[in-house]
Amino acid sequence: MRSDGLDPAQIDGLEDLDAASYRRALHEVADLIADYAESLPDRPVLPPVEPGSIAPLFPARPPEDPEPLDTILGDYRRLVEPHATAWNHPGFMAYFPTSSSAAGVIGELLMASLAQNTFLWRTSPIGTELETVVVSWFRQGLGLPEGFDGLVTDTASIGSLMALAAAREAAGLDAAQRGLPARSDVGEPRVYASAEAHSSIDKACMILGLGRDSLVHVPTDDELRLRPDALDAAIAEDLAAGRRPVAIVATLGTTASTSVDPIADIAAIAERHGLWLHVDAAYAGVVALLPERRETFRGWERADSIIVNPHKWLFTPFDASLFLTRRMPQVRAAFSVVPEYLRTLDRATPTRDMGEYTPQLGRRFRALKLWVLLRWFGLAGLRRRIEHHIWQAHELAGWVDTDPDFERLAPVPFSVVCLRWRPAELVVDTGDADVEAFLDRQNQALMEAVNRTGEVLLSHARLHGRFTIRVAFGNLRTTDRELAQVWALLREHAARLQRTPAAAAHAPVAARAGTGGR
Amino acid sequence: MRSDGLDPAQIDGLEDLDAASYRRALHEVADLIADYAESLPDRPVLPPVEPGSIAPLFPARPPEDPEPLDTILGDYRRLVEPHATAWNHPGFMAYFPTSSSAAGVIGELLMASLAQNTFLWRTSPIGTELETVVVSWFRQGLGLPEGFDGLVTDTASIGSLMALAAAREAAGLDAAQRGLPARSDVGEPRVYASAEAHSSIDKACMILGLGRDSLVHVPTDDELRLRPDALDAAIAEDLAAGRRPVAIVATLGTTASTSVDPIADIAAIAERHGLWLHVDAAYAGVVALLPERRETFRGWERADSIIVNPHKWLFTPFDASLFLTRRMPQVRAAFSVVPEYLRTLDRATPTRDMGEYTPQLGRRFRALKLWVLLRWFGLAGLRRRIEHHIWQAHELAGWVDTDPDFERLAPVPFSVVCLRWRPAELVVDTGDADVEAFLDRQNQALMEAVNRTGEVLLSHARLHGRFTIRVAFGNLRTTDRELAQVWALLREHAARLQRTPAAAAHAPVAARAGTGGR
Repeated sequence: MRSDGLDPAQIDGLEDLDAASYRRALHEVADLIADYAESLPDRPVLPPVEPGSIAPLFPARPPEDPEPLDTILGDYRRLVEPHATAWNHPGFMAYFPTSSSAAGVIGELLMASLAQNTFLWRTSPIGTELETVVVSWFRQGLGLPEGFDGLVTDTASIGSLMALAAAREAAGLDAAQRGLPARSDVGEPRVYASAEAHSSIDKACMILGLGRDSLVHVPTDDELRLRPDALDAAIAEDLAAGRRPVAIVATLGTTASTSVDPIADIAAIAERHGLWLHVDAAYAGVVALLPERRETFRGWERADSIIVNPHKWLFTPFDASLFLTRRMPQVRAAFSVVPEYLRTLDRATPTRDMGEYTPQLGRRFRALKLWVLLRWFGLAGLRRRIEHHIWQAHELAGWVDTDPDFERLAPVPFSVVCLRWRPAELVVDTGDADVEAFLDRQNQALMEAVNRTGEVLLSHARLHGRFTIRVAFGNLRTTDRELAQVWALLREHAARLQRTPAAAAHAPVAARAGTGGR
Repeated sequence: MRSDGLDPAQIDGLEDLDAASYRRALHEVADLIADYAESLPDRPVLPPVEPGSIAPLFPARPPEDPEPLDTILGDYRRLVEPHATAWNHPGFMAYFPTSSSAAGVIGELLMASLAQNTFLWRTSPIGTELETVVVSWFRQGLGLPEGFDGLVTDTASIGSLMALAAAREAAGLDAAQRGLPARSDVGEPRVYASAEAHSSIDKACMILGLGRDSLVHVPTDDELRLRPDALDAAIAEDLAAGRRPVAIVATLGTTASTSVDPIADIAAIAERHGLWLHVDAAYAGVVALLPERRETFRGWERADSIIVNPHKWLFTPFDASLFLTRRMPQVRAAFSVVPEYLRTLDRATPTRDMGEYTPQLGRRFRALKLWVLLRWFGLAGLRRRIEHHIWQAHELAGWVDTDPDFERLAPVPFSVVCLRWRPAELVVDTGDADVEAFLDRQNQALMEAVNRTGEVLLSHARLHGRFTIRVAFGNLRTTDRELAQVWALLREHAARLQRTPAAAAHAPVAARAGTGGR
């Protein structure tokens, strides 16, 4: 008996699956992935289950002994797949669709195969260097100048956090070293973004210790774009009060309505005050791959940092967010900590160690799936698909505009249509506020009724205080069939709605009762 | 011609790969994954290339047109695989090994198939609920009480950031809302960790705006464990000076030497002062899966938060880090931002929306691979492998201890051996400082010579100021063969080293010349 208490037979059992069995298992999983993809159109987009009903299907206690792969995969088909929201379903039009293309999934599989962790050059030479290649390819594809360098991170949340952390250093706050509380000698920091900016900007201010109170929500115009005059006034007021402006966040393609902040005017203001300009183009930035549509983005090349998420509208499985910046040294200043065990000793050439530039030390090899994706589609292929999604949105917008019972609540600069039901013969027997409350309720009920069909999934927002149904194109699998279908479903279920506030007040809003069956 | 400028044939071309071709491609990739795994023992662990030599192998300009999958996969085999550090190689003993088991890879593949984004319950009911199941399984497996809840995040960097952000709220700083700079009414915040704590703790303090200066590096004893008396004194001193202690970070298994802070004593101090106690057990926490080894961890159940990384010593592909806490509401307070578009409207039951608890809104379905892993191995299978790795480390430590030309520089509480070459007949013809500098140079040269063989990969640290070679077990594929081999390689290359400082001073340190070929 050895001192580890194992006999030789047990030691053999400690090794991983033998090569032949592993190959067989991988082929089994390949079929499972293919089966799931084929089954998607027949599944409901949102599983018809209630919160709390799934966990009890699994044992309360952890498994003590090993189980065969077939048992595990059987349970996967039976318990996991049916309870997943079908992000790759052709009818997924909620949030911003993240459809996984074949190329994107293959890229993920290769990432799993290679098992890189790209925090140092030596922990992944290819991971480090292919990342610079892919970042350069994107920079060129998006029409940005050579001064932009960058990296691939997980999410826009982290990308915006990185931008504001770097801005904090660039503003001379020395927060990374000395900390903010020590700085009673500087004014209270201020970050500016429109009221339509993504919640991740608020979150970044919270995390960075600037505080949510430091974020000035600059008013927007009637098309929900940040007003440069209001921005200018807010900065002037803060300066006069002794506060310390740090950064401006402009959004090109806001989450609720995809509105586009006037970036050239904002860049001029940032330059005048020497403020870090961060551009959140997480959703819409990919449109700059189309040279003929680049006018919308003119001025973003003056930004200090830009984020664009391939995992939103570029058919890349979550996660992959592109972070571009003209100021890599400031990013490094915000995040670099190099203890002895992370030093590279055995190379004469200086190495770029990516873990010095990011909040996380450990990093996935996300550049790999982007490399597969860019080669598979080519820029030309990506452009045609993006153009088609914009066309789909404009088709739907046209139908909404000509239907007397619907109205559009925002322009359609990209691929999202914001609409609501508002019957032409709306009987207004109460005050305006009541009418709006009535329309809010009915549109929520409408969206939920459409979602309960399982054919499509829509999400909502609130624009100018009104409940708004969002129909987001950008899913690779959404064909003209689903485009027609979502409009048909909206009209069909709208036709069943009560049309007078008084009548509706007595009818329960159906949705609260649950999701119903299929 | 349609208004999107596409004719029907082009529209057909916009769809993704057809089902049959997709299935074929997946099987091709399955073979590629299996081939790579089989080829690993014949590859060098660290590719013999210099920084900057890989990027030029790829085109400088992005691909314009689509390319066939075979071309892409051919380039992948030719340009990507050979330049990857072979983390799954049996000889990978650097850092903390992250070996991907078959089960872990299969889990990743299933994650890619399902394409979930688990920020809201509705965006992934299974992702949200299976996460609670898996967290509970781990909690039970680790022997922690029911009060611990938690989630799975990407890295320990993020987990520790979350812990300190929550601690900042729990300490009443109200930093998330009001920000730190506004708080001149409170003392300068202080976080306490040993000088051996991981760099991610420094980084978290930088990001959170506490500043690196806020981190008090408490002295360690001769076994590199945080000294409770020094901690107590540091807190007392800070309180007397009007500073504001916020949190204590205890490390169970430090990165350099895997030393174990005396957690029960530290917990008592945290409780006495009402401070948040965060336990970084990213590497070693899995050892608590073995009830007979749980004594080392006694007291960690009094922590406010604990991190344990399955992607370190639990055969799980990067990334997956378990974050456990008894205070989920404080975590939520640090990160929750809920705009209208993230509200869940259509459910009567309250939902847990995981994106409210994490820095990132978007979240991968990491619980899935952990579920596969736990069922595949069972707790019993995991325990046997961990026990075996500890045995491997103790075997090597025994050999080091009985060899007159080597010495061990730290205890071996888990699976890492810290050693250096120090010849018995070392001719000391200069001062002590020169001898230490000589040993540093020679041990660095030794490590680099061993690494250049391509058979194993070791990393280094500095302990008590001395250059230290670390041999880290924990790789699923490291058998007793590689255990014997790493020791043979160390002895073989040590035998070639100059043994006197004077002689060595004239000989160039070989390693600086580059990695050499194979």
